Amino acid sequence: MTHHPLLPADDAFAERLRARLPDGTLEPARPGQLEEPRGRWRGVAQWSARPRTVDEVATILRACTKARVPVIPYGGGTGLVGGQIASDGPAPLLLSTERMAAIRAVRPEENTAIVEAGAILADIQAAARGVDRLFPLSLASEGSARIGGLLSTNAGGVNVLRYGNARDLVLGLQAVLPDGSVWHGLKRLRKDNTGYDLRHLLLGAEGTLGVITAAVLKLSARPASTGTALLIVPDPKAALALLALARDQVGEGISAFEIMHRMGLDFLRETLPEVRQPWSEPPEWCVLIELGLGRGLNPVEALETLFVEATEAGLTNDGLIAQSEAQSAEFWALRERIPEANRQVGAISSHDIAVPLGAIPDFIEQAGPALAALGRFRINCFGHLGDGNLHYNVFPMPGETRSDHEDRRDAIKTCVHDLVHSFDGSVSAEHGIGRLKVSDLEKYGDPTKLAAMRAIKAALDPAGIMNPGAVLRA
Amino acid sequence: MTHHPLLPADDAFAERLRARLPDGTLEPARPGQLEEPRGRWRGVAQWSARPRTVDEVATILRACTKARVPVIPYGGGTGLVGGQIASDGPAPLLLSTERMAAIRAVRPEENTAIVEAGAILADIQAAARGVDRLFPLSLASEGSARIGGLLSTNAGGVNVLRYGNARDLVLGLQAVLPDGSVWHGLKRLRKDNTGYDLRHLLLGAEGTLGVITAAVLKLSARPASTGTALLIVPDPKAALALLALARDQVGEGISAFEIMHRMGLDFLRETLPEVRQPWSEPPEWCVLIELGLGRGLNPVEALETLFVEATEAGLTNDGLIAQSEAQSAEFWALRERIPEANRQVGAISSHDIAVPLGAIPDFIEQAGPALAALGRFRINCFGHLGDGNLHYNVFPMPGETRSDHEDRRDAIKTCVHDLVHSFDGSVSAEHGIGRLKVSDLEKYGDPTKLAAMRAIKAALDPAGIMNPGAVLRA
Repeated sequence: MTHHPLLPADDAFAERLRARLPDGTLEPARPGQLEEPRGRWRGVAQWSARPRTVDEVATILRACTKARVPVIPYGGGTGLVGGQIASDGPAPLLLSTERMAAIRAVRPEENTAIVEAGAILADIQAAARGVDRLFPLSLASEGSARIGGLLSTNAGGVNVLRYGNARDLVLGLQAVLPDGSVWHGLKRLRKDNTGYDLRHLLLGAEGTLGVITAAVLKLSARPASTGTALLIVPDPKAALALLALARDQVGEGISAFEIMHRMGLDFLRETLPEVRQPWSEPPEWCVLIELGLGRGLNPVEALETLFVEATEAGLTNDGLIAQSEAQSAEFWALRERIPEANRQVGAISSHDIAVPLGAIPDFIEQAGPALAALGRFRINCFGHLGDGNLHYNVFPMPGETRSDHEDRRDAIKTCVHDLVHSFDGSVSAEHGIGRLKVSDLEKYGDPTKLAAMRAIKAALDPAGIMNPGAVLRA
Repeated sequence: MTHHPLLPADDAFAERLRARLPDGTLEPARPGQLEEPRGRWRGVAQWSARPRTVDEVATILRACTKARVPVIPYGGGTGLVGGQIASDGPAPLLLSTERMAAIRAVRPEENTAIVEAGAILADIQAAARGVDRLFPLSLASEGSARIGGLLSTNAGGVNVLRYGNARDLVLGLQAVLPDGSVWHGLKRLRKDNTGYDLRHLLLGAEGTLGVITAAVLKLSARPASTGTALLIVPDPKAALALLALARDQVGEGISAFEIMHRMGLDFLRETLPEVRQPWSEPPEWCVLIELGLGRGLNPVEALETLFVEATEAGLTNDGLIAQSEAQSAEFWALRERIPEANRQVGAISSHDIAVPLGAIPDFIEQAGPALAALGRFRINCFGHLGDGNLHYNVFPMPGETRSDHEDRRDAIKTCVHDLVHSFDGSVSAEHGIGRLKVSDLEKYGDPTKLAAMRAIKAALDPAGIMNPGAVLRA
């Protein structure tokens, strides 16, 4: 990508940069910044910058471009594909957004919020709730994930079905491009057809084209009331038919539609016995449905009607409808703590995949036997059924550990991803490419799209300083 | 932008290209293809290509890049900013999508449709309706506008409030880039985080980066029932408060929220007396509200409740709720035929603008006096209030014509656009830049964004053949 090699952000560089920034902006990288949630890589960064303003970000990027020093924009560090960590190559400068964390304005009358990149997702959710609005982005790491990273990775989560991905929740952006120029794009407009959509180019670019420093977020009306149900379904096909039935009934009122396989409940029982389970014998498949309805509608009644109709159609034979917020929280705990149970069991290979909705049953039916040809494994398949997004994770049998299968990991991953690809699916539905999936993108991505991506990267970041090695091979 | 000048698509070029395409693909440009709806420009194109397949489109673009011949992708020809017409410079080849008009698949169980670029919007709407789904893009030219053009211009229309702009209705794209390479991106996925979003870059690029040849569109559930009301409001501020009240009441159930000033109804009376009006004396301001609600809710009752609450809050003092589909169609005819009445009266200058919702009352209050300083005019202000998108059009006084004000047009436009800009608004909310607003983009656009756009254009279309002069100066 670059004509000249990149140089490390070493002490000498830090010394020169320090002179141009307020005291305390540069500090040695903290140990936590050199780790990532899956424990796969260790970062080589030595220095971290903590700018307070967009102008300081511009100063940093200008200096890095001039010195050909790599930069990794750093948010909450919760990414699952190594986009925030470089484990080899010249030491990058970490550009942490932690001191740009203000929620600058929340305007309920416009349904907008202006936030800085370092704002924590849970704080933004709370600020919206405080003015009786909803910021619908919601995912397991919301207590520590920062909005700049969530937008740069186009995060997904449990409410995508109704409200879209992170990119769909953004009206405007402020960002610094690699040359240090600032794009002042904090527009609070629902319609603005003035040229190429630079916003959507930076959203999901994983910090490889510039640094998002602030955003105008779209808020939504808070549903007047919500209802949660946990329904047992005979198989994924029935779960899809149940989703269609629910859509016919309440239209856009379905906020979440999650599927869980028995294995997830077994893992919970095994590793987190304090999580209360509603059934003594976990069902093979169940779905978690959340409705959020407007005034004049009763979600519990709507779920009861859905249950009756679904039973008549043979789509469910048992289920629970939460009768209180506490019970709803109990149902959600099942879904939300599965990733924690997974980590304790220790996956050999995890897959964040999407296939067209109609292809889900066939995918699940074919993936099991395909993997069985490689060995004996336990499979925990769960996720955002309404979005066609499954977390399809492969675990060792009881008594074995992931390290017993190190040599099979690549074959397992290839097996799953090849099958996903054959269904015209995605090998990264919501986690992004980072460094983990660069070769997957090269293998499964469309060559014309890849060539266009490389041309865009070279055009906007000719020195190749922005998060080199993430998304595109450096 | 280009190092070498472009050459015309003349008879000699057409002769060479003809040999590589099936018989009948190339034909002389038709007179209709050299005109545009506002009658401002006449095209200089001599030849038009009508490919049937994506491979033929690729052949054409490869030949044009090699010969440095400009190409204009041509859909329904309904664009309002001259994006489809070059009135000077070397004659472009028109690439008409008229023979790639198939609706390839409609999948109600997935809420997707796969359509070719030449499909007419009304046909797509009908295909969705045929399987009890909704394709929500809806605008005045839907009977002739083709989806490729609608997506390339990121069209807006009356349902943006609820369903988003055209770009929000697309899951995947197939497109040909200027070098003739084909991006096979017809993914039917709600989540796909694999690299830069090339889709959103082509959507809204107005044919300057490549040719969209097919798309996967997102369908929605059809509301179980709809209701329409026409309410008189004292002023735009009350209209906004009414919108907020309606949102509190029915959440996402508001499909459209349009505002109309008396002038539009006066123009209808003057030029289209057959359009039936509900009031003998048109109100100063009124809003057209459409609700689309799910099962179990009655939109007429919801509108009645809204009317009672709005009356108590002083936000309306009179109004009509449609009691039949025929009456609803009558209300909509008022809104939809205003553009036709405008054309008959003949605007001096039309403005498709957006400002943040909260700024609408101030904008309207300040724009009138600002224009009055330039002369005496009639102003017809109407549009998509819920999106902050107003059509703010300036007309001559009775007895005068637009040609009496030719010398003032620029000053009027500048006056309106300067004010919009001061409110952090957009000088092209939904119509795009085309050739009409290139200098506006240069004047009001963010310089960093413009530089990035130019870099992207140069990277993807180094020969500068794609719709040169549209969006960016050639």
